Amino acid sequence: MTLTHPIRVRYAETDQMGIVHHAAYVVWLEEGRTVLLERLGLPYHRLEAQGLFFPVVELGLRYHRPLRYGEVATLRVWIEAARSRKVVFGYRVERDGARAAEGRTVHVPQDAGGRAIRMPPEILAKLQAAVVA
Amino acid sequence: MTLTHPIRVRYAETDQMGIVHHAAYVVWLEEGRTVLLERLGLPYHRLEAQGLFFPVVELGLRYHRPLRYGEVATLRVWIEAARSRKVVFGYRVERDGARAAEGRTVHVPQDAGGRAIRMPPEILAKLQAAVVA
Amino acid sequence: MTLTHPIRVRYAETDQMGIVHHAAYVVWLEEGRTVLLERLGLPYHRLEAQGLFFPVVELGLRYHRPLRYGEVATLRVWIEAARSRKVVFGYRVERDGARAAEGRTVHVPQDAGGRAIRMPPEILAKLQAAVVA
Amino acid sequence: MTLTHPIRVRYAETDQMGIVHHAAYVVWLEEGRTVLLERLGLPYHRLEAQGLFFPVVELGLRYHRPLRYGEVATLRVWIEAARSRKVVFGYRVERDGARAAEGRTVHVPQDAGGRAIRMPPEILAKLQAAVVA
Repeated sequence: MTLTHPIRVRYAETDQMGIVHHAAYVVWLEEGRTVLLERLGLPYHRLEAQGLFFPVVELGLRYHRPLRYGEVATLRVWIEAARSRKVVFGYRVERDGARAAEGRTVHVPQDAGGRAIRMPPEILAKLQAAVVA
Repeated sequence: MTLTHPIRVRYAETDQMGIVHHAAYVVWLEEGRTVLLERLGLPYHRLEAQGLFFPVVELGLRYHRPLRYGEVATLRVWIEAARSRKVVFGYRVERDGARAAEGRTVHVPQDAGGRAIRMPPEILAKLQAAVVA
Repeated sequence: MTLTHPIRVRYAETDQMGIVHHAAYVVWLEEGRTVLLERLGLPYHRLEAQGLFFPVVELGLRYHRPLRYGEVATLRVWIEAARSRKVVFGYRVERDGARAAEGRTVHVPQDAGGRAIRMPPEILAKLQAAVVA
Repeated sequence: MTLTHPIRVRYAETDQMGIVHHAAYVVWLEEGRTVLLERLGLPYHRLEAQGLFFPVVELGLRYHRPLRYGEVATLRVWIEAARSRKVVFGYRVERDGARAAEGRTVHVPQDAGGRAIRMPPEILAKLQAAVVA
């Protein structure tokens, strides 16, 4: 399953180059993960409430075309891999159908104390069922 | 006691108008509070570790002159009032000695659960001793 | 006219107190202004393209109830006053119908060089027609 | 030349996990680049004033250890490669001498209109002289 989610560029996300600052995309990816997990019946705030955290341990982004205030971008988000010790998300930001940026984040399941744990099997199963090969 | 603290403008803090975005100042004020409390022997992360939180309940800012990337601003921070139920901080941002912005934040002591509490007397005493009339 | 606009809390907008950081609201107000101006047929990116800028010269916010990740807040935005030299916006953030925060921003029309100008009459008329008394 | 630059963690940079949010590091890297370029006699705001822009086209970060409010991290920044069409910066964030995060950004020289250009030879020479092999 690939989620398609609109992103309205915020004025505060622009910089003096007149385009969206590259750090803003990192926050967009996270909003996309939030919405994708909701759709999968795994709202992240509830996972955290149960003691399961997915901090980002790796982040990669390529910027192809700038985005500007006044535009609404399309964010596509999917799960590339889901294992008991690691989840990988993929991302593509588009504007008018053209690729604006592509990204990837790697997450490691942890408990509230920051210790690496195995993903609970029923959650892992839902994530794996959503993997886009 | 008035703290004087340098603020190096970050590129990410600018917007497409070519100046520092108005929300960035809010984060600067907070950095100034952090440093002022440290100087008073009350590092805020330690207050929180002891269960004392000072959330912002009121914020006011006036913007007089824009700031730009490449500049280092001077932030002045002081305590305007300290009572057992309320602390007020004052701020002035300057560039080359001229007023760039002025602000004020009001804080209410709370416990970790978000309940309003009275400020512990020994902390209140240190804050009161620092009030700038 | 009062705009009602949903705000999905972003994880990055929370802080270690477990609630939305007070600076995030400032960016939400701006998103609300953007959407309100669009509805009035005055998309702000087009005003800027024509050389009309509305920088924030004054900002005030009161925080009544915290917001959390996993929530969708409701932002209400309206124009309190529109004059040739000054525009005032009002804001109310709600969660489940209850007041979470209230704010106000004051803007001064400027040209691209940062010089104060009079609002063009046809734009002023549209803003005035939308004022909520 | 490797720059060593202190980063004071801002409260606004934390999230509800109680640690620094991963997007905050992206802004830190940028502050590090700014300071490194200054030291090399190439203040970035002056390069932009001359019509030379270095937007980020690629970003990579690995997070090894979390950072917390109340800490001052050490950021190391260096130039990995400098060619007429591409500059690569490397980064390492440390806390108490231990590796907290590592990163890399790739930049492409552009003019004010966003067109790819060749780096002016005298600027390229200064960057190349600073490359850390």
